[in-house]
Amino acid sequence: MSQQQLSAPYIIFLGDAKDFLMAKVAKGMVHWRPEKCIAQMRLPAAKVNLGLPDMTMKQAVAAGAKTFILGLAPMGGTLPSSWVPILKEAMEAGLDIASGLHTRLNQVDDLVTVAQATGKKMVDVRQPSLNFDCGTGLRRPGKRLLTVGSDCCVGKMFTTLAIHQEMQHRNIASTFRATGQTGILIEGSGIPVDAIVSDFIAGAVEQLCSANDEHHWDVIEGQGSLFHPAYAGVSLGLLHGAQADALVLCHEAGRTQMDEIEGYPVADFETLIETNLKHGRLTNPNQFLAGIALNTSAMSEPEALAELARYEAKYGVPVVDPVRTGVAKIVDILEHY
Amino acid sequence: MSQQQLSAPYIIFLGDAKDFLMAKVAKGMVHWRPEKCIAQMRLPAAKVNLGLPDMTMKQAVAAGAKTFILGLAPMGGTLPSSWVPILKEAMEAGLDIASGLHTRLNQVDDLVTVAQATGKKMVDVRQPSLNFDCGTGLRRPGKRLLTVGSDCCVGKMFTTLAIHQEMQHRNIASTFRATGQTGILIEGSGIPVDAIVSDFIAGAVEQLCSANDEHHWDVIEGQGSLFHPAYAGVSLGLLHGAQADALVLCHEAGRTQMDEIEGYPVADFETLIETNLKHGRLTNPNQFLAGIALNTSAMSEPEALAELARYEAKYGVPVVDPVRTGVAKIVDILEHY
Repeated sequence: MSQQQLSAPYIIFLGDAKDFLMAKVAKGMVHWRPEKCIAQMRLPAAKVNLGLPDMTMKQAVAAGAKTFILGLAPMGGTLPSSWVPILKEAMEAGLDIASGLHTRLNQVDDLVTVAQATGKKMVDVRQPSLNFDCGTGLRRPGKRLLTVGSDCCVGKMFTTLAIHQEMQHRNIASTFRATGQTGILIEGSGIPVDAIVSDFIAGAVEQLCSANDEHHWDVIEGQGSLFHPAYAGVSLGLLHGAQADALVLCHEAGRTQMDEIEGYPVADFETLIETNLKHGRLTNPNQFLAGIALNTSAMSEPEALAELARYEAKYGVPVVDPVRTGVAKIVDILEHY
Repeated sequence: MSQQQLSAPYIIFLGDAKDFLMAKVAKGMVHWRPEKCIAQMRLPAAKVNLGLPDMTMKQAVAAGAKTFILGLAPMGGTLPSSWVPILKEAMEAGLDIASGLHTRLNQVDDLVTVAQATGKKMVDVRQPSLNFDCGTGLRRPGKRLLTVGSDCCVGKMFTTLAIHQEMQHRNIASTFRATGQTGILIEGSGIPVDAIVSDFIAGAVEQLCSANDEHHWDVIEGQGSLFHPAYAGVSLGLLHGAQADALVLCHEAGRTQMDEIEGYPVADFETLIETNLKHGRLTNPNQFLAGIALNTSAMSEPEALAELARYEAKYGVPVVDPVRTGVAKIVDILEHY
């Protein structure tokens, strides 16, 4: 097994989260995988509510919970020491624990001792669990879609999950393949590609979405951008390893400067499309652009619809906002591919 | 300190190497850094000779040696158990030890014990020594050259070392920046970029060749190729992090198929040049192609010279074979940049 794997269903720990910014991952899990989330646990100071039953560890175990999820991002991503007794209690009650924090559970001695004593698993989703092989570039069966982006934080994960959900609704055989920590917590499995040793990026992605039934779609979460001066290597390794048939280009409407990097304008759309396809076709010569996903959340409805129409006329592919319009127009194309 | 660092001079261990294929790294060290190599140590079955004085550990220490180098590649890259007592003896005699083997010295309990007792350092050059930051993309002073390739094993390290050597001969301020294990052993410092966590490739390279005097050249060893289905992510991160002013494209004359990867032709030269410059100019808009280095070792002298002339006429930059013609024509251009 080369992926992170979480056992469902979950009890989700919200700590003392003040708002959904801190509890963004938890909110995503409940939004995309409600069937896997059966309970929440909150500290007295918490101000958020996922709408799940509040349970103790024992109640959650009795209700069938298998994993205690730290689905939140406290300041700095480190584990508050006051949470350690809670995590111990979870394992002693019979639950695995999983975390997207920077602090690795497997490096907290107190927790390792309890994990060994109870036989429970601690999954750090930022940390790859095993070694990988180098990429082979060999073609493999199965259909694959990859989201690519103009920048970080433009909606690649959301778009990928939305396309997968739409495929599920239409009974198209498909699997969401998570490549980042939030995606892995949502799906319960995946590979954190940005944490892989660089020699193995493409190889790890080949393993994440390996040979499959010829009608099955792997719907793969993209990372970064080919034009991001810090992360482009990850994006290119992902593009080569994925051997995607279909790309969906994601962008935040109106963003002209890259988000976390000073002095870098967003590349123009023609260049983004052409460059992704050129590199992607190295490992899958049949690759095509299946659509564009724009995050138009900062726009009014008429502005947004006009923007989508403008892109559609210009680039000749379906252009959607996954939140505002859904992704059906893109899946229409994939369904008949 | 974010780089691997070895203390010179060295005593070089050749084990029972049968030929210079096994002792390739040792040979490279003596070729490129003869002033740092003062002794060799060979087991009775060894069949190679670097032309250095054979010394015991004690003799080498008395002669000033600081580091015992495992400059060879035994079958599988693992450490034969019969060498462990030799490595212990080296540290007990007062030497650091450095290795390019897959086996990590720092994971051999017996060696760790002796290292702790003696206070000697064990350097695994395949293993990055510290954590790195993400890239910033911020422009920095100093001149930089990066070799890029059509494939792996086309002569990038050799070309980079030759350009650095020619600059040294001309008293051009310059530093060779090693990015692979052999280069690190030769130079005595560097960062093994293919062993860096992928999020940090560009950032690690920014640190490897950080801000410098405006007339100083960092001459940076390239890795892989943008068109290699397994390693292109490393190449792109290197290209972005290097912010190179000058690129030198390396290729083995006559190679049409990629070496270790089935079914991939070598990309055509126009595409290689254009694609490297396009991506490289993201972080250094002034980047230019300073020359082409062809490995023509499989050709006769007249064939080789004709090939170099043909490339030169076609691409309009100096084309050299670093072994056959030297790299002076390329450095002529750099000297006046």
